[in-house]
Amino acid sequence: MTSATVAVIGASGYGGLQTLRLLQGHPGLKVSLLGGERSAGKRWSEVCPFLPLQDDPEIEAPDPDRIADRADFALLSLPNGLASDLVPALLKRGVRVVDLSADYRYRSLDQWSQVYVHEASQRHREDHQLCEEAVYGLPEWNGPAIADARLVAAPGCFPTASLLPLLPFLKQGLIETEGLIIDAKTGTSGGGRAAKEHLLLAEASESICPYGVIGHRHTSEIEQLATQAAGNEIQLQFTPHLVPMVRGLLATVYGRLRDPGLTADDCTTVLEAFYRHHPLVRVLPVGTYPATKWVKHTNRALLSVQVDHRTGRIVLMGAIDNLIKGQAGQGVQCLNLMAGFPPTTGLPLDPFYP
Amino acid sequence: MTSATVAVIGASGYGGLQTLRLLQGHPGLKVSLLGGERSAGKRWSEVCPFLPLQDDPEIEAPDPDRIADRADFALLSLPNGLASDLVPALLKRGVRVVDLSADYRYRSLDQWSQVYVHEASQRHREDHQLCEEAVYGLPEWNGPAIADARLVAAPGCFPTASLLPLLPFLKQGLIETEGLIIDAKTGTSGGGRAAKEHLLLAEASESICPYGVIGHRHTSEIEQLATQAAGNEIQLQFTPHLVPMVRGLLATVYGRLRDPGLTADDCTTVLEAFYRHHPLVRVLPVGTYPATKWVKHTNRALLSVQVDHRTGRIVLMGAIDNLIKGQAGQGVQCLNLMAGFPPTTGLPLDPFYP
Amino acid sequence: MTSATVAVIGASGYGGLQTLRLLQGHPGLKVSLLGGERSAGKRWSEVCPFLPLQDDPEIEAPDPDRIADRADFALLSLPNGLASDLVPALLKRGVRVVDLSADYRYRSLDQWSQVYVHEASQRHREDHQLCEEAVYGLPEWNGPAIADARLVAAPGCFPTASLLPLLPFLKQGLIETEGLIIDAKTGTSGGGRAAKEHLLLAEASESICPYGVIGHRHTSEIEQLATQAAGNEIQLQFTPHLVPMVRGLLATVYGRLRDPGLTADDCTTVLEAFYRHHPLVRVLPVGTYPATKWVKHTNRALLSVQVDHRTGRIVLMGAIDNLIKGQAGQGVQCLNLMAGFPPTTGLPLDPFYP
Amino acid sequence: MTSATVAVIGASGYGGLQTLRLLQGHPGLKVSLLGGERSAGKRWSEVCPFLPLQDDPEIEAPDPDRIADRADFALLSLPNGLASDLVPALLKRGVRVVDLSADYRYRSLDQWSQVYVHEASQRHREDHQLCEEAVYGLPEWNGPAIADARLVAAPGCFPTASLLPLLPFLKQGLIETEGLIIDAKTGTSGGGRAAKEHLLLAEASESICPYGVIGHRHTSEIEQLATQAAGNEIQLQFTPHLVPMVRGLLATVYGRLRDPGLTADDCTTVLEAFYRHHPLVRVLPVGTYPATKWVKHTNRALLSVQVDHRTGRIVLMGAIDNLIKGQAGQGVQCLNLMAGFPPTTGLPLDPFYP
Repeated sequence: MTSATVAVIGASGYGGLQTLRLLQGHPGLKVSLLGGERSAGKRWSEVCPFLPLQDDPEIEAPDPDRIADRADFALLSLPNGLASDLVPALLKRGVRVVDLSADYRYRSLDQWSQVYVHEASQRHREDHQLCEEAVYGLPEWNGPAIADARLVAAPGCFPTASLLPLLPFLKQGLIETEGLIIDAKTGTSGGGRAAKEHLLLAEASESICPYGVIGHRHTSEIEQLATQAAGNEIQLQFTPHLVPMVRGLLATVYGRLRDPGLTADDCTTVLEAFYRHHPLVRVLPVGTYPATKWVKHTNRALLSVQVDHRTGRIVLMGAIDNLIKGQAGQGVQCLNLMAGFPPTTGLPLDPFYP
Repeated sequence: MTSATVAVIGASGYGGLQTLRLLQGHPGLKVSLLGGERSAGKRWSEVCPFLPLQDDPEIEAPDPDRIADRADFALLSLPNGLASDLVPALLKRGVRVVDLSADYRYRSLDQWSQVYVHEASQRHREDHQLCEEAVYGLPEWNGPAIADARLVAAPGCFPTASLLPLLPFLKQGLIETEGLIIDAKTGTSGGGRAAKEHLLLAEASESICPYGVIGHRHTSEIEQLATQAAGNEIQLQFTPHLVPMVRGLLATVYGRLRDPGLTADDCTTVLEAFYRHHPLVRVLPVGTYPATKWVKHTNRALLSVQVDHRTGRIVLMGAIDNLIKGQAGQGVQCLNLMAGFPPTTGLPLDPFYP
Repeated sequence: MTSATVAVIGASGYGGLQTLRLLQGHPGLKVSLLGGERSAGKRWSEVCPFLPLQDDPEIEAPDPDRIADRADFALLSLPNGLASDLVPALLKRGVRVVDLSADYRYRSLDQWSQVYVHEASQRHREDHQLCEEAVYGLPEWNGPAIADARLVAAPGCFPTASLLPLLPFLKQGLIETEGLIIDAKTGTSGGGRAAKEHLLLAEASESICPYGVIGHRHTSEIEQLATQAAGNEIQLQFTPHLVPMVRGLLATVYGRLRDPGLTADDCTTVLEAFYRHHPLVRVLPVGTYPATKWVKHTNRALLSVQVDHRTGRIVLMGAIDNLIKGQAGQGVQCLNLMAGFPPTTGLPLDPFYP
Repeated sequence: MTSATVAVIGASGYGGLQTLRLLQGHPGLKVSLLGGERSAGKRWSEVCPFLPLQDDPEIEAPDPDRIADRADFALLSLPNGLASDLVPALLKRGVRVVDLSADYRYRSLDQWSQVYVHEASQRHREDHQLCEEAVYGLPEWNGPAIADARLVAAPGCFPTASLLPLLPFLKQGLIETEGLIIDAKTGTSGGGRAAKEHLLLAEASESICPYGVIGHRHTSEIEQLATQAAGNEIQLQFTPHLVPMVRGLLATVYGRLRDPGLTADDCTTVLEAFYRHHPLVRVLPVGTYPATKWVKHTNRALLSVQVDHRTGRIVLMGAIDNLIKGQAGQGVQCLNLMAGFPPTTGLPLDPFYP
C-alpha cells in the first residue's frame, strides 16, 4: 500500500472537519493542503483549537496550481455551485476529485440548473461533459467506476440512506415503482456550520418539523438513481424532517410488494445477498430496527426491512451518520477505491455507544 | 359558571401531573382528591416538590366510595387495564369519568382484548356495555356526545395528531381510503414516567429510531375512527418513531387525492372550514409547516396540508403536545364539555417560545 | 384594577417574544404597539406564525411620538446601547419605561462605559442623571422604588439568580464578604435569537463549557448590588457556563459563614424570612436542590441552601428561567408594580413538568 | 509488541461497552471473555445489536477459574462492592486486574467502609492489604507503579477531571491548600445504564441541577490524592451537577495563588511542563476554555487555567469524556502500561466534531 496525498478544500465546515478527522488516522492518505475561502491565511489551530494537525498548517485560498503541485486528490466540501468553479482546472492538472456538493450528481447539467436554480443563476456553467463523466459516488453500487474515475460526486445524505435499502428491491423488480414514499429525518448538522436562526439550539431543540415538503432538491437525486436501478421512470414522494440531534439520519421508505407472498425474512435475505461483500452496510435481523445512535460516528449504514401482510406494504429503514456515511466518510470511502485501498481503510465501523 | 370537583387518579405519572398543572389555574374545576397506588399515603410535596398544591394533600389509594363522596368527576391516568377495574364502580356511584388509558377506546371489548392482549390476559373484563357506551373523547368530532357522556375515553396521542388532519378528507370523500400511510414522531415522555432503559437520556438522546413498525396498538384505534368517518373499512400503515425530545408529536400522513385537480389552497380551505369553530385546532397557511415547538405546553393542534401534483399525493401534517392535546389537556377539554364550560377553559393556547 | 397600555420594542427577539406571550393573558396590561428595527413594516404573523396576536398588528420602527400617543408604558428589549438612544425621548413624553438591557443598570454612566466598552464607543451618552434615577428592577428588593419609578432597569439573568439567594446573607452580615464565588450555568437562549455559530444546536448540544472566565460583564452588576446590601465593597469571582438546554439558569454560590455554628436549617430560615411575602421566590427544604426544569416557563426563583461544617462553607443555589424571571417575566413583574397590580398578575408560577 | 488477553467483566454496562469498543481496534489487547451477571448465558448480539463482536461470544457468569484460564488481565466494570468479591480470587490465580469501581481507590479499607456505607453493610471485606497494595490508576501521576501493579483502581470520573489540573499546583505549592472549591458538571451517562427515573430523557433533559451538595463520595477520593500531592491534609468543597447531555464532564476548580504575581501565562506554563510527555493531557492556550465536546469520544483531558488579579484567584478547568478518560479509556490506558504498550495504544485522541 503506497501513500497518496489529499487536498481538503472547505476545511473548516462540517464536511471538511470530518474529512480531516477521518484522514488523521488513515494509513495511506495524507492531507497535504488545507483550502478555504473565509479562513484563508489563518493557522489551522486558530480556526479549530480542538483537532490539532501536525505542523499546524495554514489554510490557503484554493489555487489549482498549488493544489496540483501538492496533492494527488482533492476532496471538495464547498457550498453548492462553488465546486464547479474549481473542478475543471483541477482535472486539467491531473488532480482526481471527490466533490461532496451536488454540482456533479446529475448526468445532465440542464437538470442541475433546474434543481439548483439559485446557484445556476449566479454562474455560467458549461461543463456538460464533466456532468456526464462524473461517477455517482455510492460505492456499494458504483464501486468499479469510482475506482477508475477522475471525478466522483459523493451522494447527498438523504439519497444515501434512502437508496441503500431501496435499490436492491427496485433492481430485482420486487416492489412497485409507483407510489414510493420516503419519510426522512435528519439531525441539524445536515444544515451545515454557517449560523442560521432555525438551527440554533434554542430554536431546533425540543422540536421536530417537516420542511421542503414537496420539491426538496434531494427528490430528483433519489429519483435519478431509482430510475436507473428500476429501468423505468420513477417519481416518488420525499419529505425530510429536522430532528433535535446533532447527527444521524433515518429514512423510512414505504413501498408495495409485487409478490404479496414475500415475508420480512425473504426481504431481509434480499438485502443481505446484495450487501454480503459490502462491510459498510449491515442488515439487521427481522424485528430489530435501526437507531441512528447505532451508527453515530461510523461509516456504516444499518438497514432493516419489515412487511405488513395486512396492507401489502414493505417498510424499509436506513440509518446513517449524515456527516460520515452521508458525507465525508463516503467521500473517503470513494478516495479509498480511487487510491487502491480496501473500502473500509481508515473508516470507523463501530459506535461509541451511548 | 358553577364549580365542579375532580378526583385525579394516577396523580404522579405524567398524565396526572399535567392534569393537576392544568387544573391549577382552572376557574371552574377544583381538584378534590389525589389517587395513586405506589405513592398512596404520602403527602403530595414528598412526591412532587416542584408543583405545590394548596394544603399539600395526601395521595390516597383509589377507593370508589371516597371518590364518589368527594368528586363529581374522576380523571383516570392509569396504566392500560387498571381503569377497567375502577370505572364500573365509579359510574355506579354517579361519578362521571374521563379515562386517559385505552381501556374504553374501542366500541368492542373483544377488539380491545385482541389489541391489548397482555392486559386482557391479566384480568377478566365483562364491561361490554361500557365499551359500547363510552364516547371517544375527540372533542372536535364528538363534542355533543362528550358533553352528555358518563364515560369518555380520551384518545391516544398518535390518533389525535393523525386523525385531526385526516378525518375531514375522509368524511368528505376527498382522498382514497386505500394506501394511507402515517409516519409519526413522538418525544420520549409518551413512554411514561416509569424508568425504562431505552428512555434514559443517555440512550434516547442524539438518536431517532422507528419502533412497533407493524402492529403498533394505535393502528387499530386510528383505523376505527377513520373507518367511521369514511363509511367504509380502512386499513392503513402506521409507523411511530422515537424522537430525542421531551414533548411533542408530529404525524405526517400520506394519501392520494381522488380529484387530482385539488390544490393545496383548496385542501387548506377544507381543513379551515371543518375547524372554523374549534379554537383548539389551527390550520397553517400553505407552505408553513408545523414545528412541535409551536404547540409545546399548549392544548392546540396545528395542521398543515400540501399537495404534490407530480405524484397526485396529499401530505397532511398534525403537530401536538403529546402530554396536553395528546393526553391530559384533551382530558380536561372533555371535562370542560361535560361540566358545561367552554372547551378552552383553563387550557393554554400559546407556547412559551423557544 | 384599571387597564394600562404597553409598547413592546424589540418584539421579535426572545425578550420581546416572552413579553408578548406573558401579556397575552394579562388582565390589566394590553399591548398597544409593537416596535422593531429589522422587522419594521411586517405583519406580526409573518415574523411569528406560532403566536397569533389579535388583529395581527404591524411592527413599527420605534418612534417616541407614536409610542407616547399609544402607550402608558414601554418595555424595551433591545441590544445593549440602543435603549439609551430612545429612553430620554420616551421619558420626556411621559412614557414610563422598563428596559431589559444593561443600559441603566449602573448608577454611574462612567461605570457602564467601562464595562460596556464596545457599546460606549459607538455612541455618545450624556444621560448621567437617568443612570442615577433609574431603579434596579429586582422587585423583591426594590419593590416600592420600582412602583414609583419612571425608568426601571431590569436585572441581568445571572445577577437575578445569584443575588436572590445571596443578598439576605450579605444584608444580615452572616457571611464573609471576601472570597465569594459564583459558578453559574445557563441555557443557550441567554445568547439571544441572532444566529451565532457557537449557539447552533450542532455546536452547543452535547457539550458544556465555561466562557468569560474572568471579567464577564455581569460580574460588576452583581458586585454593585452585593456591595449595597453588605455595606462594604465586594469583589467576587463569577464564572458562567453554557449548558446544552434552551432555558434555565442555575447559580451555585460559595461563601463562608461568619458564625460556624449556623446550620442549613438556620440558613434556610433566613431565606424563608426574607422571602415570606414574596410569592415569586420559593425556598426549598434542606436537602432538596433546585432543578432548572422546576422553574421552566415560570416567573419563580427556587432557592436552596446547604452548609458544610467540615469546611465552614455555605453553598447557595438559585434557579430561574433565564427568559422569564431572568428577563421578560421580571420586566412584567416590574410593570405590575408600576401599574399598581399585584406582582404576580398574569405571571406563570408553576411549570409544565416535564 | 506481543499480544495479551483481557476478560471484560460487566460487559453490557456503559463501562464494559466502552471497554469493548476501545479494544475492538486495539493492536495488542484481545478480549477473550465476556462476563456479566444479568446477561449471563446470552449471546452478545442479543444484548447489544449495534456492536458486533467476532464470533458473537456468549456472556458468562464471572468465574475466577475460567477467567484465569483464558485471560492475562481482567477489567472489572461492576457496581461498587462487587469487584471486591472477585478480585482476591483473580489475583491468586495470577490474573492482573484493572477495577473501574471504587472498591480499591482508598488506601484504607476503613475509609472505604465509611464512604461506601451501604455497600460495606452488605458484605464483609477483609482485603485490607489489597487496598494498600492497589495502585490508583491515574497514569499521568502513577505511571511506573501502574505498569508493575497486580491491581489498579481506576479513578472516578470527577476525580480525574479535577485532579489533573489541580495536582501540579498542589505539588509545587503554588496554591493555598485551604478553601479549594470544585464545581463539577457531568452528563447523565455517569449514572450508569440501569434505568432510574431521574435519568430519563424526559426528566433530565432541558434541566441542570446540583446533587450530593455536601458529602458526595468523590470528595474523599479527590482529597486523598490532593493531600498526597500537597503533603498536608486537604479538605475541599465539591459540588457535582447533572447536565442534560450524554457524555462529558467539566470540573471548574477555584483556588487562591500563594504568589499573587503569577499570571495566567505562568500558570499555563506550569501545566504544560507537567504534562509535556503525557500525550493524553493537552493544555489549552490562555483564554481558550475547554468544551466537553472537544474531548467527546476521546481519551484526552483538556486543561485550561485563568488568573483573576482582582481577586487573587486561580480558576482551573478540566474537561474529559466521563466514559473514556473518566472511566473505560483510563482503564485501557492502565492496561496499556501493565502490558508494556505505549499509553495511547488503541485510544482515540481526536473528537468527531460536532
